[in-house]
Amino acid sequence: MSEKPRDPAFADADCPPADLTVADETCSPQSERLDEDNQLRSGFVRRVQDALEAGEVDQVYTLVEPLHPADIADLFEAVDADERLALSRAISDLMGGEVFAELNDHVREGLVDELSAEDIADLAEEMETDDAVALIEDLDEDEQQAVLAEMEPEDRAAIVSALSYPEETAGRLMSREVIAVGEHMSVGDLIDFLRDDRELATEFWEVFIVDARHHPVGTCQLSWILRAPRHVPLTDVMKRDQTLIPVTMDQEEVALRFQKYALISAAVVDESGRLVGQITVDDVVHIIQEEAGEDALALSGAGDGDINEPLHMTIRSRMWWLFINLGTAILASSVVAAFEQTIAKLVTLAVIMPIISGMGGNAATQTMAVTVRALATNQLTSSNTWRMIMREWWIASANGLGLGMLMAATCQLIYHDWWLSLVVVLAMVLNSLNAGLSGVLIPLGLDKLKIDPAVVSTVFVTTMTDTLGFFFFLGLASALLM
Amino acid sequence: MSEKPRDPAFADADCPPADLTVADETCSPQSERLDEDNQLRSGFVRRVQDALEAGEVDQVYTLVEPLHPADIADLFEAVDADERLALSRAISDLMGGEVFAELNDHVREGLVDELSAEDIADLAEEMETDDAVALIEDLDEDEQQAVLAEMEPEDRAAIVSALSYPEETAGRLMSREVIAVGEHMSVGDLIDFLRDDRELATEFWEVFIVDARHHPVGTCQLSWILRAPRHVPLTDVMKRDQTLIPVTMDQEEVALRFQKYALISAAVVDESGRLVGQITVDDVVHIIQEEAGEDALALSGAGDGDINEPLHMTIRSRMWWLFINLGTAILASSVVAAFEQTIAKLVTLAVIMPIISGMGGNAATQTMAVTVRALATNQLTSSNTWRMIMREWWIASANGLGLGMLMAATCQLIYHDWWLSLVVVLAMVLNSLNAGLSGVLIPLGLDKLKIDPAVVSTVFVTTMTDTLGFFFFLGLASALLM
Repeated sequence: MSEKPRDPAFADADCPPADLTVADETCSPQSERLDEDNQLRSGFVRRVQDALEAGEVDQVYTLVEPLHPADIADLFEAVDADERLALSRAISDLMGGEVFAELNDHVREGLVDELSAEDIADLAEEMETDDAVALIEDLDEDEQQAVLAEMEPEDRAAIVSALSYPEETAGRLMSREVIAVGEHMSVGDLIDFLRDDRELATEFWEVFIVDARHHPVGTCQLSWILRAPRHVPLTDVMKRDQTLIPVTMDQEEVALRFQKYALISAAVVDESGRLVGQITVDDVVHIIQEEAGEDALALSGAGDGDINEPLHMTIRSRMWWLFINLGTAILASSVVAAFEQTIAKLVTLAVIMPIISGMGGNAATQTMAVTVRALATNQLTSSNTWRMIMREWWIASANGLGLGMLMAATCQLIYHDWWLSLVVVLAMVLNSLNAGLSGVLIPLGLDKLKIDPAVVSTVFVTTMTDTLGFFFFLGLASALLM
Repeated sequence: MSEKPRDPAFADADCPPADLTVADETCSPQSERLDEDNQLRSGFVRRVQDALEAGEVDQVYTLVEPLHPADIADLFEAVDADERLALSRAISDLMGGEVFAELNDHVREGLVDELSAEDIADLAEEMETDDAVALIEDLDEDEQQAVLAEMEPEDRAAIVSALSYPEETAGRLMSREVIAVGEHMSVGDLIDFLRDDRELATEFWEVFIVDARHHPVGTCQLSWILRAPRHVPLTDVMKRDQTLIPVTMDQEEVALRFQKYALISAAVVDESGRLVGQITVDDVVHIIQEEAGEDALALSGAGDGDINEPLHMTIRSRMWWLFINLGTAILASSVVAAFEQTIAKLVTLAVIMPIISGMGGNAATQTMAVTVRALATNQLTSSNTWRMIMREWWIASANGLGLGMLMAATCQLIYHDWWLSLVVVLAMVLNSLNAGLSGVLIPLGLDKLKIDPAVVSTVFVTTMTDTLGFFFFLGLASALLM
């Protein structure tokens, strides 16, 4: 957490964190470990696993040591679950905060279970506040207290304060280490201040200018400071208009602000407008990625879709979704059951019936995905909702009519029955309109009710297209053909 | 593009770009324009539209003027397509590079069509290289030449060079304005250099240290420079290991690197390893968001799912997807047709049949979404592919058996036919296994063939679950029940 410079000359320990991809001459070249996609090579992973199995701890260490912490974290995902503990022991002094911060949640949980409160406290102290919070918030209450008791008072205070904000808010995400200076300073004053004060953070991208009440009045990008002469007042170099993040803002909303205004860092303020911390873009990037990616998983009912989740949890969450879908499938087939007499008279209906419901489902899925993404990215606003609905109506009409005619022509070719073809085209058009409207209105309605449309829409929408699809087709058939 | 400081005191024009959310006293408060989600209020949009209709150009200008460029861009999306040209004319001197850079592609295309080559050239010169390239790359060849001819030689050279790299690579994304200095400099030398040289960029986050051949040897975060005394050599403050981005790297890969290593900026190098530009995280954030979000759209066959796309283009792309799906639906129903005799003898089969295929489809969709996301985020590597397949096999077995038994019990309750219930459970288990394996193997196979699994998987997977689902159920029924 508190990254304090120890050496005035910034020689080595503090400043350049051991990092990245350039080859290290003392060991095997980079390309033996990572492939062209920057993933760990399976041959390399195999070698680590073999060394682990053979109990050659030194060999494991030599292999892993040149890796970047993010790659060490990947290595834990790549080896089998039952090898992870042995690996963490073999490389225990490489297992710093940076590695733990990068570990997949499920993998980390497994490893943290084996650590003492003291070990966890040591790790947390190495980490940035937001990563330390992520580590500690998953522990149960007793363990949390034990870990906090082991921490330095200052670090503990930061964690306790972060934990006092709701999960997934700016308060949990922010770092409390900000450079905040008064309005009266000049560029030269600031540089002297930064050089002198040994307790300041070393990693920051912007300096915040605050008034006497500690309210932010401006932000200064470091490049502006470096390019300005010493005598210039900071108030002349700072940007006065800034995006201030309230400490209780939802992290998804924070991510959208960073994206919209291309921010690198932003000041976090409490209810009274006082500067309490900052959020930097690197903490936001993985939120953007997760929030965007989870829609694909949620729409498919795949839960959080993490391939490292314990098997029984995955089975349970997916089974639950399939169970609900089984209910809706039975509902839809009860419509078919109501028309058993009709089908008995013309078995061909059973052949065509799945096409009508299936095409409706496909059309609805398209519309639903577009609506869910537009809602998630703030593209769909009260100003354009009506336009979006009309748009989907036209698309549904065009596609229903086009594909309905095509399908009717195919039927006519095979069954030579004009009435049947008429039923097909009518059912396709009706179900296409049903699909288009369900696909847009159901997510919109759920969003209005503050229910995540990505998670719940699919069930409702497919129920509509299956049930009504069967009803339109078999109902029209029994009215017009029998 | 080239943002050159004009005033040594950095007074106002240059440095603090007109920005962000703090209220402006000279006009209506912020909250009248943006709601709590930071979206334009529909009332505000309505007022702009009314003023446009009434031809009150000054009123439009007064309303729009306090908006951030990103919000002006949103405003163009919010008003109707036929009002956009009038809006752009009413606020023509607010329509700077920043607004155009933020505009939705489809909206921008509509506006750019109305501009002269000279206007476009002026806009491009205000923009950062990557945004200017995005503006110009969409023009047709003649227009591109006309625009380039109007540009300043230096800016033109940057664009021409960027356009020489393939689309969606680092070369198109990078900015050529980097601060690169020699290894011999001290911190003080660097600060003097930055203060003196008026042609340098003002927006940068890291300084690159290069050797005599212009190869990057280290990176220096500005905060380290500001915290170090003047006499310290740069080589003592710089980070030696860096993530170098080859100029031809795909932008998705660039985004993954930024995420994995939490980068703020990174040096871009050509084939010979020379520093040619830099990429900053704000240019990468929207790629991360798009790449992650587009999987949800691609899996659903919704194309690029942009709600601003012209209607006929959306209809065409969605129709095309539905047309392919109609083909697979007809294929699946031909299996049903092959068993018409069987269904004629027991119409109940037609009632249960959609449940079997539908449940398979749902299970496959879950697996497929997880696989596609794991591939997209580099989580699925050669080291864990086999584990993933086995994992899905177990999930499919457990869910198939669990839900199959449940479904069989339901059937037994309704139809009192042990043999029918047996057919149901067998068909459910078989189709669940089919779904699990198709859901993981088809995306993996497509990925191996360098075909985007998000776009193509769904068609293949649903064909498998529908066709084989019908085949398992009706085949078993005709074998065991007839």
